[in-house]
Amino acid sequence: MSRSEVVATYRVDSYLPLEQAAEVIAGEQSTGTFVAVARETPELRDRFAARVVAIEPTPSSAADLAGADLAGADLAGADLPGAIRPAGARRRSGLVRIAFGLENFGPSLPNLLAAVAGNLFELRQLAGIRLLDLSLPDAFAERYPGPQYGVTGTRRLLDRPDGVLLGTIVKPSIGLPPEELRILVRELAEAGIDFIKDDELMGNPPHSPLADRVRVVTEELDKVAARTGRRPMYAFNITDDLDRMAANHDLVHNAGGTCVMACINLIGLAGLAWLRERCALPIHGHRAMTGVFTRAPQLGIDFVAWSKLARLAGADHLHTNGLSNKFYETDDEVLRSIAAVREPLLGGYQTLPVLSSGQTPGLAPETYRRTATTDLLVLAGGGIHGHPDGPAAGVTAMRAAWQSTTSGRDLTETAQQVPALQQALETFGPPSTSGGGHG
Amino acid sequence: MSRSEVVATYRVDSYLPLEQAAEVIAGEQSTGTFVAVARETPELRDRFAARVVAIEPTPSSAADLAGADLAGADLAGADLPGAIRPAGARRRSGLVRIAFGLENFGPSLPNLLAAVAGNLFELRQLAGIRLLDLSLPDAFAERYPGPQYGVTGTRRLLDRPDGVLLGTIVKPSIGLPPEELRILVRELAEAGIDFIKDDELMGNPPHSPLADRVRVVTEELDKVAARTGRRPMYAFNITDDLDRMAANHDLVHNAGGTCVMACINLIGLAGLAWLRERCALPIHGHRAMTGVFTRAPQLGIDFVAWSKLARLAGADHLHTNGLSNKFYETDDEVLRSIAAVREPLLGGYQTLPVLSSGQTPGLAPETYRRTATTDLLVLAGGGIHGHPDGPAAGVTAMRAAWQSTTSGRDLTETAQQVPALQQALETFGPPSTSGGGHG
Repeated sequence: MSRSEVVATYRVDSYLPLEQAAEVIAGEQSTGTFVAVARETPELRDRFAARVVAIEPTPSSAADLAGADLAGADLAGADLPGAIRPAGARRRSGLVRIAFGLENFGPSLPNLLAAVAGNLFELRQLAGIRLLDLSLPDAFAERYPGPQYGVTGTRRLLDRPDGVLLGTIVKPSIGLPPEELRILVRELAEAGIDFIKDDELMGNPPHSPLADRVRVVTEELDKVAARTGRRPMYAFNITDDLDRMAANHDLVHNAGGTCVMACINLIGLAGLAWLRERCALPIHGHRAMTGVFTRAPQLGIDFVAWSKLARLAGADHLHTNGLSNKFYETDDEVLRSIAAVREPLLGGYQTLPVLSSGQTPGLAPETYRRTATTDLLVLAGGGIHGHPDGPAAGVTAMRAAWQSTTSGRDLTETAQQVPALQQALETFGPPSTSGGGHG
Repeated sequence: MSRSEVVATYRVDSYLPLEQAAEVIAGEQSTGTFVAVARETPELRDRFAARVVAIEPTPSSAADLAGADLAGADLAGADLPGAIRPAGARRRSGLVRIAFGLENFGPSLPNLLAAVAGNLFELRQLAGIRLLDLSLPDAFAERYPGPQYGVTGTRRLLDRPDGVLLGTIVKPSIGLPPEELRILVRELAEAGIDFIKDDELMGNPPHSPLADRVRVVTEELDKVAARTGRRPMYAFNITDDLDRMAANHDLVHNAGGTCVMACINLIGLAGLAWLRERCALPIHGHRAMTGVFTRAPQLGIDFVAWSKLARLAGADHLHTNGLSNKFYETDDEVLRSIAAVREPLLGGYQTLPVLSSGQTPGLAPETYRRTATTDLLVLAGGGIHGHPDGPAAGVTAMRAAWQSTTSGRDLTETAQQVPALQQALETFGPPSTSGGGHG
């Protein structure tokens, strides 16, 4: 291509011919308005107009719906409100690729979003519109340093050169007094966990100020490290208004903390990029509120596109959900997210996928079979804290399950030697071989 | 109430009894996990658990769908993917109000979002989930100063104590060289426009750097002000990565500019609050990308809830769309957004609604009839630039239309005295009395 471009891939549904729908998108998101205007010369359009690169029709999912049992159906083909439907027009669906000249916005994440997303979701010519993927030119890598630690940096800090990284979330989610947090962290660290994180609901609330949590947690981790030589990483949730978040980061860093957690959608991608510029620690990227733009199948921004932006903005770890999770995503969708996060971006950006929600020891064999990697941070919340013998036994069971799995042994046989694992399988369910969960 | 609380109102669809669905939301967003965990005491739950305040069943829209012609239907009742549907269960819909103790997160916009939105949209127990409204305690007003100028401050800067404020967007959206922008601004300012803004697609691109635009625009506005005594407000689009955005603001302010525009969703609410703290000028809040969380009826965050957060974060002006706009919203939805923005918030926060998209002189009577106020900033892009006699005639036509309307005269009669208005009505359509557009 002669100009440096961003290529955006959309899934489009429309009652207009797809070619026309694609031109509406390209026009609205670059040179267009609803009437011809003075000074919009052919030269200007040639230089700045977005360009439809490819259109690939797909079967319209709406066609299958007539007469179907609707309630409960997965209505990916439902029309968005306000869609224009000329009399007698047929619904078309397809993948549309549109190229935007980098010259239109420069390598700026917020201004990129104005072009590739912006007003697009409100267009009446579209009955369905979803941004699936983005291909970005190298200028973005020049502007954004991306993850500072990624997989290898996190392993180095943890002194875990290989194997799955095992973690947990502090539970109860909210309300645990600092002195109880101290006891919990001690127990988890002594049981050999790699990683502990605050819940996304636990920021800097009056009843448990971050400063108090940092104090008790780092004291306990220092003690355990002195005794065992291993210091788990604790991701303090520093999410807050931006200046406060920066101060939270400094508080953690100055106390010797080794990780901060930020809820990316709650501070914004621009907020994450801003944090990255003044951050000395790995950023554990939580995806709370991603569902608001991923769950409606005919609308929104796919995790694949969003995760690229989050990685550019500097996320070292990125939540992807795990298999058989308690949320809406199918295992296939989760696997696609894990693969997306692991794919090299712009020649190198590395991000560690974080599998969480409903994770238990019994999921280890299926997760390993389907991801074929140990470059995973697997978080079990209830699956560790809910162990009948307590969190330490929960950690032992998770560790044994993953060690057994990655060395090719049968989980049920391993459980005969490891009582904590046996109890976990009895409590949370046996090894899953079907992918389990819903689907 | 004995504790300071945030009350969130949701529209919920579920195949569980609504009471149970509401408890799932309250649990997930405060003290819950998927199994009972150690240390989650009854005292802790009493203090931190979110509380279901009210449940108001509404007819389930899904019931009407069986056998209907689906394609093109407004499927507000379609189920979100992954929704749990026990055999034989019936779909329930309703409004659910949940109270969250402020103690859980403190008056912090990002941490508030973790609680009232967060993982909520991903819950399989919900077949539809939309955050409609938020009631916030005064502690938020103590933390966030809100809009700095609002309606009265904007009128004061413009020396327009009454009447509708009239504005336009620079068109073509993108690609206009600074020297052509100069000529356009001169023409618009001489024609008596109150307000001009950059398109949301025009940030700080290489082909037309913000510094160049600021230079030519302020030179022209200064000249016009010296000649006529009136200086229109120009909203420079300063949207960018945050440190760059702050520098953009300073550039505008130091040059004597009187307004900055920020795309709220592209910088994030936290980014807006951060800008507000270092901003000397009115913030023109653009809503690009709002459709991603408003357009699917069964998912997302309603404009009413979102606009409150944007106002808290400091938006002086907020885009609401206008009647008969080219986007998906109906006139009723637009009127609800305008009313939401005008409603006093936390004892005073004032924000000026911005009506845009497809606005023409013929819409003045219906807009005034249905909003019953002149505290509006009405933007016409194509409706001014597309005037057959050019932008100056477009401004004259818009001004005449609104003056005629607010003084109770008939638009068609006024047009007989004002040729520019006559031409506009012939070009863009006659006065609308039905509310026009789609819907």
